[in-house]
Amino acid sequence: MSSSDIRTGSLEKPVDVAEYLFTRLHQIGVRSVHGVPGDYNLVSLDYIPECGLDWVGSVNELNAAYAADGYARVKGIAALITTFGVGELSALNGVAGAYAEHVPVVHIVGCPSTISQRSGMLLHHTLGNGDFNVFSNMSKEISCALARLNDPNEIAAQIDHTLRECWIRSRPVYFMLPTDMVQKKVEGARLATPIDLEEPKNEAEREDYVVDVVLKYLHEAKDPVILVDACAIRHRALEEVHALIEKTKMPVFVTPMGKGAVNEEHETYGGVYAGASSDPDVIKRVEGSDLILSIGALKSDFNTSGFSYRTSQLRTIDFHSYMTVVRYSQYPDVTMRGVLKKVVERVDTSKLNVQPIAHKQVIETPSEASGVITQAWFWPRISKFLQNSDVIITETGTSNFGIWETRFPPNATALSQVLWGSIGWSVGAAQGAALAVKDMKAKRRTILFVGDGSFQLTAQELSTMIRLGLKPIIFLICNEGFTIERFIHGMDATYNDIAEWKFKELVTVFGGTDERTAKHEVKTVDELNTLLADKEFIAAQKLQFVMLHMPKDDAPRGLVMTAEASAKTNSKTE
Amino acid sequence: MSSSDIRTGSLEKPVDVAEYLFTRLHQIGVRSVHGVPGDYNLVSLDYIPECGLDWVGSVNELNAAYAADGYARVKGIAALITTFGVGELSALNGVAGAYAEHVPVVHIVGCPSTISQRSGMLLHHTLGNGDFNVFSNMSKEISCALARLNDPNEIAAQIDHTLRECWIRSRPVYFMLPTDMVQKKVEGARLATPIDLEEPKNEAEREDYVVDVVLKYLHEAKDPVILVDACAIRHRALEEVHALIEKTKMPVFVTPMGKGAVNEEHETYGGVYAGASSDPDVIKRVEGSDLILSIGALKSDFNTSGFSYRTSQLRTIDFHSYMTVVRYSQYPDVTMRGVLKKVVERVDTSKLNVQPIAHKQVIETPSEASGVITQAWFWPRISKFLQNSDVIITETGTSNFGIWETRFPPNATALSQVLWGSIGWSVGAAQGAALAVKDMKAKRRTILFVGDGSFQLTAQELSTMIRLGLKPIIFLICNEGFTIERFIHGMDATYNDIAEWKFKELVTVFGGTDERTAKHEVKTVDELNTLLADKEFIAAQKLQFVMLHMPKDDAPRGLVMTAEASAKTNSKTE
Repeated sequence: MSSSDIRTGSLEKPVDVAEYLFTRLHQIGVRSVHGVPGDYNLVSLDYIPECGLDWVGSVNELNAAYAADGYARVKGIAALITTFGVGELSALNGVAGAYAEHVPVVHIVGCPSTISQRSGMLLHHTLGNGDFNVFSNMSKEISCALARLNDPNEIAAQIDHTLRECWIRSRPVYFMLPTDMVQKKVEGARLATPIDLEEPKNEAEREDYVVDVVLKYLHEAKDPVILVDACAIRHRALEEVHALIEKTKMPVFVTPMGKGAVNEEHETYGGVYAGASSDPDVIKRVEGSDLILSIGALKSDFNTSGFSYRTSQLRTIDFHSYMTVVRYSQYPDVTMRGVLKKVVERVDTSKLNVQPIAHKQVIETPSEASGVITQAWFWPRISKFLQNSDVIITETGTSNFGIWETRFPPNATALSQVLWGSIGWSVGAAQGAALAVKDMKAKRRTILFVGDGSFQLTAQELSTMIRLGLKPIIFLICNEGFTIERFIHGMDATYNDIAEWKFKELVTVFGGTDERTAKHEVKTVDELNTLLADKEFIAAQKLQFVMLHMPKDDAPRGLVMTAEASAKTNSKTE
Repeated sequence: MSSSDIRTGSLEKPVDVAEYLFTRLHQIGVRSVHGVPGDYNLVSLDYIPECGLDWVGSVNELNAAYAADGYARVKGIAALITTFGVGELSALNGVAGAYAEHVPVVHIVGCPSTISQRSGMLLHHTLGNGDFNVFSNMSKEISCALARLNDPNEIAAQIDHTLRECWIRSRPVYFMLPTDMVQKKVEGARLATPIDLEEPKNEAEREDYVVDVVLKYLHEAKDPVILVDACAIRHRALEEVHALIEKTKMPVFVTPMGKGAVNEEHETYGGVYAGASSDPDVIKRVEGSDLILSIGALKSDFNTSGFSYRTSQLRTIDFHSYMTVVRYSQYPDVTMRGVLKKVVERVDTSKLNVQPIAHKQVIETPSEASGVITQAWFWPRISKFLQNSDVIITETGTSNFGIWETRFPPNATALSQVLWGSIGWSVGAAQGAALAVKDMKAKRRTILFVGDGSFQLTAQELSTMIRLGLKPIIFLICNEGFTIERFIHGMDATYNDIAEWKFKELVTVFGGTDERTAKHEVKTVDELNTLLADKEFIAAQKLQFVMLHMPKDDAPRGLVMTAEASAKTNSKTE
């Protein structure tokens, strides 16, 4: 009897490592696992179906990582499986994006056996230098926790701890799973107790102190407003935010990354605030306010039109997932959910001075006599097409800026990657988002807006959508290349051009039949209006791919201003 | 007058940093620069045409990195430009492959300005943590030299040193080029002196000593043979190898990664040695030899059929790019080119005991009565199709193993990625290889063998080939998924299946016209024979895409044995 047999004998309910890991993933909400097979992960893949999960083989690892990101943004968490070296490095940019943007993705890397690692074997998928930690060290920088599963005695605890970190900190974690550990036995009895996913509570006395300070300023303010940003969504504080809006009736604005956080049809909704390129009325209300409750701020360049806020910290209270800041007073480890909850409970609405929103903000569709579909016409127009609870994905580029001009329906979920801004992300993310909707058995449409340049990077993921029978509506903005780059530098440079593809034929090449997919091409306002009014199109019962021609040198207002600011930052020499 | 103006005034011939860098790239042999535009690299791209270079916008960064790898393997060196964070991370797997496989690729990353970096601005394409070195630190592990170009006083020297390292060490280097440095002035007068690319010479006395020891054993041997591997190609020792063969007439064998290194029609050529799955006659000759001159060995699992050499170090002399090993005596820093050169000069052919190769080795095309194109039939058959100086690219999977059975014509160049083994690599690499041929104005065909599973990962690079007017012959082996994985684990597992594409229609979707491209589909031996005999097809005057149907559960002998060994290594538990 070997020592490992003795250990197994002492387990109350022995289960294989892979079964333990996948059962935990199922418990915390994962239903579909993204990835690409590779010989170091193959055996573990056999466990997926028996743990109630579905395997989604993406077309490549970067697409799989983007898909996991999109899945997590809708479903709450996602998992990604790649193989050692080649697979995991291909996924790195996608996982880095999830890290930057606070998205919980569990990245599991099948790697050579502990025996091969110890003997430094010259295996395929290595650098040939016997270093088996070089890739996991790279991932350490873009993971909030990392576990090398090398010792069966530790593995169950490592898995539980690491998955908890992923959820609580809302960022990627990394597992290195050697081939010889997949079938080792660990204590299955632990599985009867779910992983504790409760966020640590703020220390009560400190929290009460902060709440008092917040309320003091709030009750004194003459014109307070709420500004909701990305981390309010990612760190799951929306319930508290909605309660605050309902109770106080304060005007509420969202940043570009905060779009989708609040009901834009609510009477207190004021619009998108993104600094200098915002609507002038929005600028006036936000920058004129004497107290901004800023919730989950992430003030990156593209989220602020190039750092163009003209607000003052003296008139701001910042609620973060890791601290609260009232004017210049910092309260580390006093986190937003606890504070906001008590603020809602204790605010004295009779003491509040709330100035209502003047609702000229109903977005009108500008007329477009020429028939050309311009950015200025398109984005407000799309507002009328959107429905309650749509999932809306926008790509970095014209779409991310154009969507500021679109009024969202209630319960919309918006996905964008404003900080990380990796082009091509949205195509993978749309696959993941649509699949999450399917896994949740929800009746929600998934709608993607992506430019032709970005689409080319990850186009094959369309094939996964078709294979899975997903039914997104894809608006492909055909404007001949990298428009966002043109506005930053090189308006007519050939490096901003792209190859001409017969884009919509890809649907057929990738296996899309007329029964399950539909292709459209629209060049004029009238054609688009007709399509958007079509009942079958609205119903979204198949995958629908729309080539939408727009002028090459046209861009949303927000993009033009942000690009100018970027070009200036890039070239500043002192 | 600012301090930088004063410095500029002291320069004899001021040139902009980007001009300096690109001029140096041109001097060392680069003609086409691969990459994807991004706002942190846009200004530098403006300099490319004026330095005599062509910009090749690939469809995404991973493809661009693979293409640069392929370009370097044919042209000698390559360059790749990406943007900070998102772009460079997408390329990482491709660059890591070049590192593992000793391919010199210059990776230039356009990054935020030094001013933005110092102030830790929350810019797009960052992790949002103010750390601007996190990505370059990742690349450090897969680069033989790294230069952050932050100080105009150092930049010219940094560029020269780093490019020299790239060439000499035949591995990737990494440049971090901030936006505000692109147009800084550096000393252009240096450009009149080429970068010294001469390898450091061995110390003469040590080298002579080693040569004496080598000759002693060589003259005593009863049946010496030569075995040529990857690093003989990558570290540019082929001239010495060819001279050794010519002078000594010793039997010469190549490993899978050494394929293409020697003339396979030469009378002394014996075949491919890859351990246990080699041809039995080859095994007998290599393993029966009493002295193996092993040149540039890289004994990875897939290069040795799972470490199955039955040779003895006591009967081996190893010539490496960093040392020589005679039996168990090591001579560090005595490198192969110098030693081989002197061995050729000083060997006394009258003292040599050379046993000739028995030439039953003419590869016969097996008959295939059923008409089905099997792996066993296909690879020997392709020998007759190949022509002098073809560039042959094989993908990880069936192609990499099948090609062992193909006899190459003289002056063939073979590209494969046996150690790193990243699937999809060959599609990008074929673009780079075909472009290198074009840049060299050579009359060589570029021929790619790739499986359908691998092709899907990087399929869009076909569009770049079409856009550039390249004329590769692409054999797409359609066998319904990841055959190499099936043989390792999961023969019928759905995770080894892939989506069904109308592959050859991609040529049209990506802009291929009948005038400039051709599509074929072959399902039987007769159909293939007809195609391979077609004069127009042979002439390769347009891009030719061939769907080649082969059975799903069929694999070359070498793959079957290597996969078995891999599965065993993966599952070994003690």
